Amino acid sequence: MTSLGDLPLRDDLRGREPYGAPQLDVPYALNTNENPYPPSDRLVKALGEAVMDVAGTLNRYPDRDAVALRADLAAFLNADTPGVGLDGRRVWAANGSNEIIQQILQAFGGTGRTALGFEPSYSMHPIITGVSGTRWVNAVRDDDFGIDPARAVAAIEEHRPDIVFLTSPNNPTGTALPLAAIEAVLDAAPGMVVVDEAYAEFRREGTPSALTLLDGRPRLIVTRTMSKAFAMAGTRLGYLAADPAVVDALLLVRLPYHLSAVTQAVARTALAHGAELLGGVEALRRDRDAIVAWLRAEGFRVADSDANFVLFGTFPDRRAVWEALLARGVLIREVGPPEWLRVSVGTPGEMAAFRTALTQALKEGL
Amino acid sequence: MTSLGDLPLRDDLRGREPYGAPQLDVPYALNTNENPYPPSDRLVKALGEAVMDVAGTLNRYPDRDAVALRADLAAFLNADTPGVGLDGRRVWAANGSNEIIQQILQAFGGTGRTALGFEPSYSMHPIITGVSGTRWVNAVRDDDFGIDPARAVAAIEEHRPDIVFLTSPNNPTGTALPLAAIEAVLDAAPGMVVVDEAYAEFRREGTPSALTLLDGRPRLIVTRTMSKAFAMAGTRLGYLAADPAVVDALLLVRLPYHLSAVTQAVARTALAHGAELLGGVEALRRDRDAIVAWLRAEGFRVADSDANFVLFGTFPDRRAVWEALLARGVLIREVGPPEWLRVSVGTPGEMAAFRTALTQALKEGL
Repeated sequence: MTSLGDLPLRDDLRGREPYGAPQLDVPYALNTNENPYPPSDRLVKALGEAVMDVAGTLNRYPDRDAVALRADLAAFLNADTPGVGLDGRRVWAANGSNEIIQQILQAFGGTGRTALGFEPSYSMHPIITGVSGTRWVNAVRDDDFGIDPARAVAAIEEHRPDIVFLTSPNNPTGTALPLAAIEAVLDAAPGMVVVDEAYAEFRREGTPSALTLLDGRPRLIVTRTMSKAFAMAGTRLGYLAADPAVVDALLLVRLPYHLSAVTQAVARTALAHGAELLGGVEALRRDRDAIVAWLRAEGFRVADSDANFVLFGTFPDRRAVWEALLARGVLIREVGPPEWLRVSVGTPGEMAAFRTALTQALKEGL
Repeated sequence: MTSLGDLPLRDDLRGREPYGAPQLDVPYALNTNENPYPPSDRLVKALGEAVMDVAGTLNRYPDRDAVALRADLAAFLNADTPGVGLDGRRVWAANGSNEIIQQILQAFGGTGRTALGFEPSYSMHPIITGVSGTRWVNAVRDDDFGIDPARAVAAIEEHRPDIVFLTSPNNPTGTALPLAAIEAVLDAAPGMVVVDEAYAEFRREGTPSALTLLDGRPRLIVTRTMSKAFAMAGTRLGYLAADPAVVDALLLVRLPYHLSAVTQAVARTALAHGAELLGGVEALRRDRDAIVAWLRAEGFRVADSDANFVLFGTFPDRRAVWEALLARGVLIREVGPPEWLRVSVGTPGEMAAFRTALTQALKEGL
């Protein structure tokens, strides 16, 4: 029998493990920052009908440039962040924001180039960077998981990265960045600056979006996803807003027809039902703030969160806590800085199960 | 206004044009080797219902490893090529065979590595190779568009490629390879050998599939697609068959959750209706042989074709012929060796329009 070691795998991949949280069948899945509120019966029907509308031409290739979908996404962003004045030429879409990130690295990174991020952050940034042949530099976040502008600028001046990744709100810490920090990075960076806003719709009142910085800054890219607030993780639709020249660059590296006719139809239907899908966001923000307050009241350290998850700790043996929760049917995520754990914000019932399991586990010595 | 030249694009991408045949609205689209036979009303309904079945859980991430779909694809291959005895562990799926090819290059190619192909062939092989940072070597095909085993072995021994691309039937020439040529390449190649069989289901009676070579050859990968014979170009579903260790390698580079729940459901439904979808293949093979015979009778040079398209020529000014056909509503493809053109096999009505347009255009001096 052949094993992976027998194949001529790229040297830098040897010994690696596939990325990904365990996909386990548990009563309470609070590990991948999914939105717990499923589409309504009405939307389920609309999605099926949208697919039937395109299914009769599935023998043909889809619109390679997804023009209609991109216009719809621009309209959504204009409503989400009034005043940004986007149109479809400034928006690009792909199969999840992972593919967006990959295309950015393929266009602006690659052999001999460098990307820099501030960890702990989304672990796919360095992974996709490495697969693209780009060198990864980790500029560590501050103790409070923020990014001090002066330190960030110093790191950029030292490493001269071709791409800088900022994540706001940051995964797995929940930390949002002030615009001043993003502007400082933009001013110092010699190349592209990507602000990953996968969780932006969950941000607290008054927290800004980097979308407001796009005008006149052609090296800024803001990425978003329909997987989180939009409750469409199963659809795989990520997107970005940027200067039209950035879209021109990505056209050179995207796989032709990367976005299926079905994905385009499903995403457009979901956007047309945006009010319903985003309807859970208010409850999730409220329940996030409640679980932060509860964890703090219980004596845990908790990172401020503008996202739909909460990082909490600290545990000398976090694996034991993770396992004790799993034994009680509650799956959370062992990720981020050592001694911390991340829990996604679920329904009130799911959060009650989490609180009970955590309390019991710690009371009973795990 | 910013232009692409103002951005810090990768140097080797500067001056490139985006890949892709023009997407024009014409009466007769015979340029992208689509299957002209659309899904039936019954299948359209089944596809919509399949999506409704999964839509209620679209707030959750899909099965990251697409286990059920891969088992279905293996079952299809076992029926297509009896005796190969595949199972889901030896099959991998992605968003079109372009993404399959990209994952292969990411796992086995990259900085400092080399891929070799025999051109003229599928133009995405060198493009994806370049984007992945892998060096591309073109080993030219013979004058009859075949690959002489001795010359192939010599090219491999000279360049020691990490990946060899073979395409059978070859796009844009239609040429299928004898197993002996593939075996010679496998014996000589120090790395992976990819046989791109996107058009395999159209091969003539007696033409073999490289699937029959998989047993005991862990460095062989055979890629397939549902875009062509399966009449599902709009669904974007490519796949491969290989040793399970190859799948283990691709798990290290695939983007997590790359294949949406909707794509998985649509592809599985299409496979369940395989008899209907593949029902057009017989007619397309017959009409291909008929258009080959007609073109030869008209005095053209025509490459033997095992695919759903025909390469014909030669034209000192092929662009003029392409334009003259387009002016008559017939869109074919200006691709492949100079002086040749490629026409996809459409419905009998579409082929009649092609014959009439070509005859008129040449009679009237274009």
